[in-house]
Parts: sequence; structure tokens; C-alpha cells
Amino acid sequence: MNAEIIAVGSELLLGQITNTNARFISGHLAEIGINVYYHTVVGDNPERLKETIAVAESRADLIIFSGGLGPTKDDLTKQTIANHLGTTLSMDDDAMVSIAAFFERAGRPMTENNKKQALVLEGSEVLVNENGMAPGMMYQNGDHMYMLLPGPPHELEPMFQFEAKPKLVRMLNEENIILSHVLRFYGIGEAEIEDRLQDILDKQTNPTIAPLASAGEVTLRITAKTDTTDEAWKLIDGAKEEILERVGQYLYGYDDDSLASKAIDLLKQQGKTISAAESLTAGLFQSELASVTGASAVLNGGVVAYNKQMKVQQLGIAPEFFEKHSVVSEEAAAIMAKAAREKFGTDIAVSLTGAAGPDAHGEEPAGTVWIGIDSDQGTHTYRLELSGLRNTNRLRAVKLALYYLIRTLADEDARKI
Amino acid sequence: MNAEIIAVGSELLLGQITNTNARFISGHLAEIGINVYYHTVVGDNPERLKETIAVAESRADLIIFSGGLGPTKDDLTKQTIANHLGTTLSMDDDAMVSIAAFFERAGRPMTENNKKQALVLEGSEVLVNENGMAPGMMYQNGDHMYMLLPGPPHELEPMFQFEAKPKLVRMLNEENIILSHVLRFYGIGEAEIEDRLQDILDKQTNPTIAPLASAGEVTLRITAKTDTTDEAWKLIDGAKEEILERVGQYLYGYDDDSLASKAIDLLKQQGKTISAAESLTAGLFQSELASVTGASAVLNGGVVAYNKQMKVQQLGIAPEFFEKHSVVSEEAAAIMAKAAREKFGTDIAVSLTGAAGPDAHGEEPAGTVWIGIDSDQGTHTYRLELSGLRNTNRLRAVKLALYYLIRTLADEDARKI
Repeated sequence: MNAEIIAVGSELLLGQITNTNARFISGHLAEIGINVYYHTVVGDNPERLKETIAVAESRADLIIFSGGLGPTKDDLTKQTIANHLGTTLSMDDDAMVSIAAFFERAGRPMTENNKKQALVLEGSEVLVNENGMAPGMMYQNGDHMYMLLPGPPHELEPMFQFEAKPKLVRMLNEENIILSHVLRFYGIGEAEIEDRLQDILDKQTNPTIAPLASAGEVTLRITAKTDTTDEAWKLIDGAKEEILERVGQYLYGYDDDSLASKAIDLLKQQGKTISAAESLTAGLFQSELASVTGASAVLNGGVVAYNKQMKVQQLGIAPEFFEKHSVVSEEAAAIMAKAAREKFGTDIAVSLTGAAGPDAHGEEPAGTVWIGIDSDQGTHTYRLELSGLRNTNRLRAVKLALYYLIRTLADEDARKI
Repeated sequence: MNAEIIAVGSELLLGQITNTNARFISGHLAEIGINVYYHTVVGDNPERLKETIAVAESRADLIIFSGGLGPTKDDLTKQTIANHLGTTLSMDDDAMVSIAAFFERAGRPMTENNKKQALVLEGSEVLVNENGMAPGMMYQNGDHMYMLLPGPPHELEPMFQFEAKPKLVRMLNEENIILSHVLRFYGIGEAEIEDRLQDILDKQTNPTIAPLASAGEVTLRITAKTDTTDEAWKLIDGAKEEILERVGQYLYGYDDDSLASKAIDLLKQQGKTISAAESLTAGLFQSELASVTGASAVLNGGVVAYNKQMKVQQLGIAPEFFEKHSVVSEEAAAIMAKAAREKFGTDIAVSLTGAAGPDAHGEEPAGTVWIGIDSDQGTHTYRLELSGLRNTNRLRAVKLALYYLIRTLADEDARKI
């Protein structure tokens, strides 16, 4: 079975929003072995939408639509598909009840146009919307399965993951087991990793090995297709061993690990607590840690000290210190980390100070960042020279701070991470 | 002139990354009046890429490719286009010099496969890559313009905005002036705003009015197409006046405003400073403020107090307080805001405390959040009941805190915001 994902909405073509839905759906389809060959985005225009559907029918078995199920005049997906397939729309009573309840909870009057959201393709299987009003639906017509999902990600994501995906898994006759395992690296470029693994990559057939780089991180996805789970893991483990022999020192985690989740795991395993003192990142480092469920077991908190005066007042750094040292300096990063560790009584503390941009800080060009890490192992500092825009630099600094934190927590031998 | 944007990369179809490039490019094309009718994503497969190019040639004048210019075997865009158009690739000397320099700066050896990045379509206009190695290019062939851009957003974005877009503007014969103006609303749903404006939306032709909702925010984009700038603004202002008469109380800003930039602007105008005490959001509120260039003029900093003990120690709240009140309570939000304002000596302070999820906090279900705002006007608190996943709730809480901050800073009459 192969799929095409069609996002409907002029706001996507105007650049007002990003098509995160296609990514979300694709990731889940990859997991269950459904190939996605195309994503398409088309505007709120019935003629162009019809042409897009016809093209998709010529090359995909499963056609997944996102968007255009809402209450406004622009929302044309259901009507256009019904029209194209020569079927009709009918009112779904359960959906109507839940729409009315939604307005009651919100304490707002239900306007007439909202009723349109309860219409579904006649004969379709309805997907309940737990987080919004428009229901989704699955509709089989000849060889094609049409799936219609609402546009807002907080509605689409749980609907797809918890309602639609299990139905797809049941539909697949599971002739094959497809298993994927992702290796996550940091501190090495995509070209370099591929160069070091060239002969392994050249000979790959089963398992396949796909490299990917994003925001300083490189991943390798190993995918095996066989009859049994055991056999699939055997293939994956063989490839993994070969890969790690060559680039294992850059490995930081697997599968759904992120730098933040890996750091939290290591802190938990070691029974250590953490705090932070942030300047240019202004809380983003702590927020990344807190994005991981269960972070409260290890994250005490920290200080955002966004100017020199606050570094003095809130971190207890002597005013004279900054007569000798710039706030963007190795010394400042070191003393900030020490101060945070003491103030918050944690086993480890991380500091970030620098010039995010667009302006330089004194003699330090925009993109200069110092990271400090204070722990029983002493104080370590790291200088970064970043070349992106303001918020790219802030995010990159946070990722690198997480990476150095992981290295500090792990043995010198990164293979043991 | 109309355009199609083709992103090339199997990682997009596997759901490993999001196609943010299409959004970025589309937004800039909309500004200069180039219509985008389709986005397409296709994998690293020469046959499917060729078919995609042929489809795009049948419906677009300008075809913009992102991705597939890198050093690895998967990077096939240039070769496939050259092959499709019957032209060849040649080495660009400037690009080769800059690739060698890149490796020298990074202190890493240049691997052989990196040289491939300096190849360009014979006869194309080269776009310099200031933030990476692979140059971009523009290539005219008959009625079609092909533009090739690198995949990584931090390379593509400045290349498109500062190199390619000015060239496109010169190419357009500017027969028409196209002007857009965006009105930004918060605290009103998309369906409700459309219901209130139904007759205005029904009669729209020039200017056009396009509503859009995302993350609790609704925008209306008013676009006029005329001979002169004056006339365009006259059309836009007329529509704007009609709209604001009906829903002006929900307006918070215009065009590139964000909730954070609007809050920073108001603080600057009023000469006020701000601090924060964050629990569930763990620094994300402060980080949002700091994402705005120049935030340092008003943002002093704040505390992340991620557990009860830290709220006591770092904010100086009496331990007995929490014997009477939950950390997720109106009282906790109020005292946290007051404590932060005092500690950081600011004119205003914002607090956030709540249960992000997935777990409830005692009797408070996941998604319960209290926001506190302390200023000369007294202490105000706001209760939220959010229904999303952990990180959606954290982000939504931050956006609502920014919204209430704006309301606090502005007059009661939101029209004056």
C-alpha cells in the first residue's frame, strides 16, 4: 500500500502556516510500513483540488486529506470529494451533539455555519474529533481509500494516531514485518558520516540505511523488512554494530530520544538534579528540559538574568567581576554556572551567555556564545561561534548545551552513553 | 507569473522533517504578488522527480526546488534537472573556493564527495550560499524559470530573501501594485469572526479578505491589487475600518506583529520593565519575549521555580503558604507574580503555574493553568483549562499570558492597542 498526503488550504500557499500535518502523518505511516511517495498542497479552489485528487488516484492507494473540514466558506474538501466521487453528504448526529456541547462549554453561541461541520460523506466511517468540532472520516471507493482529517494539528494528531492509524494497521494484511531503528549522532556532519560509512551505504539493500541531518544533528534510520520480528532485529543489529564501530563516539541516543530526553534520562539514572543560569537563551534551555515528561524529578529551576545588573543581583556575582570580564566571556559563563549550582543546590548547573544577534556585544561578534557546566567534576566552558539569525543561534546554543551536558554526564567513552 | 514549489527529500516523506521552506518561500512570493498554486514533496528518486517536474511545467511559470544539492548520494536534484532539460553541470570556481574555506574554518578535512556541491547547471545564474556550501542557481529555459535552493532552512532562507527575491522583483514587470495588510486577533474563534463579518466577506473582490486561524490566533489578510500604492491603501483602509467596527475589541496587532513583539513594543513605549516567575512553562514565556530583537531594553529576567521547594527558596514564599494553597492555584499565581516583581525590581511581573500534563496535579486536572500579572494596577489572575498534549498546553499558556499582558498594558478599550 502506498499513500499520498494532500493538504488543502490557501493559507499554506500564502506562507501563513507550515504543513506540519504531512510530517506527522508520514512519520506514523513509515512506522507501519506504508510508503509515502508524494505530499501535495493545494488551495481552497474546487477545480484545482479535483485535479489534484485525480493525479493522486493515478499513483496512490491511500489518499489522506488534511484541512478544509471547518465551518467557513473556504472549507471545501468534503463537498469537492463528494462531488468528484458522485456521492453525497449527510448529517452525523453524534458529531452534531458534540459540536453543540463544545459551544456550551465555551459559553459562546453556536453560529449557523458551524452545523456544516457535522456533515460527512455518506457511507464513510467517522473518526471522532476529541479536540475540536469537525469529525474525520475514512471512505473506501473501489481500489482507493480516502481519509479526511481536520487541519488544526492539535485536532489531527490525536485523531490520526489513536483512531485512524489502528484502523490502517488492521487493514494491512501484515504480510511483512517492517522494523526501523534510528541512531542519533551529534558533533559530526552528514557528509563526514556518509564518507566514513560509504562502503556500508553502497552495499545496503536489506536493511536499508538512510542518513538525515537537521539542526546540527545527524540520524541514521536502519529499516529491515522480513517475516519475523526476530529476523528483522538480527538484520538491524548487524548493521548497527558495523556503523558504531566507525562513528560510535558521536552517538548520543536512539529512536525517539532527543538531546533533552537523553539528558533527563541520564540525570534520573544518576540521581542528579540540575539548574541553569541563562542570558541570551532567556529560559529556552530550561524549557527544553521541561518539555520532557517527568523532568520535575531532576530539574529544580534556574535564573534568567538578561542583563549585567541582574547577573550581579540575582546570581550574587560581585559588580567588580564585570569590570574585569565581559558578560560574554569564558569567565562569565563559569561564574554563572557556579552561582546557579550553589543558589539552587543542585548537583550540576549549566549557564549560557552570549550575543544572539543581530548586534555584536562589544568586541564579540553576534553568534559568540559561552556555555558553562559546573559539577563535581569541576567547571568546564565551551565557546561557540554561530552564524545564523538571532533565534536560530539561541536554539543552536541550547542544543549544544544539552550535548555538552550529556557528554559531562556520560563517561568519556561516548559509546557507553 | 505563478509558481510551484517542489521540495526534494525522502526525509520529508518519512516524516523526519517538516517542509518549512515551502512556507518561507510562499510568504515572500505572496508579498511580491506571485501566486503559488501548489507545493509538492517528492523523494530522492530521479524517475519520480522527473515526473514531478513535468507536471509542474504544465501548470507553473516559476518552479522552485529546495533540497538535494548536498554532497551525499541521495542528493540528485541538479543532476536530474540537467538530465531532464538536456543540459550539463559545470564546476563553479567561486563555490569551490568557498567550500574549501568552510572546511578550513571548521578544522575538518574536506572529503571528496563535498566537491560535488560546487557543480552548477551550465549557463545558470549562481546564488551565493553565505551559510553553507552548496550554491543555489536560477536557470531560464524557454518559458520556464527554474530556481534551485539548498534544503537546510538556515541556508535557504537568507539566500532566497536576500539574493533570489530581489532578482524576481526585477524580473516582474510590475504592471500591478499588490499590497497586503494583516489584522491580528486573539480571544475570538475563526468561525465567530467569519460569522460576524459574513456580508463583508461575501461581497469581497478587491480587496480580498482571507481569514486564518492558528494556535488560538485569528488573522485577516486584506489584499488589494491596483495601479498605485495610494489607491491600494485606500481600498485596504476602507475594508479595515468596516472590519474593526465589528470585531475591533479582539485586535491586538498588525502584519509581522506577534504577541511577544506587541508586548515588547508596549513595554518600550511605556518605559516599563518586566520579569517572570515560571513553573510549568519553565522559561518559555521569557524565551518568547527574548525572541524579539531589542527585548533586553525591557526584560530583566526571572526565575524558573519548577517545584514547591524552589518556589519557597527562590521566590521567598513562606512554606506555610503551601500548606494552605496548592501550587496550582489562583493564590500561588498571585504570590509568585508579586514575588518576582519585587525580586527583580520591575514595573510588571507575570507568573505561570499549572499542570502541563499528562498527569493531573492533585485535584487539578492536566491542562489547568493559573496566570498572574502584578503591576501598579494590582494583581490579576486568569484560569485556563487547556485540553492539549503537554507541550501544546505549555505553549498555549505562554501565548495566553502574553495576551493578558498586552491587555493589561493597553487601555481597557482594546481598539487603542
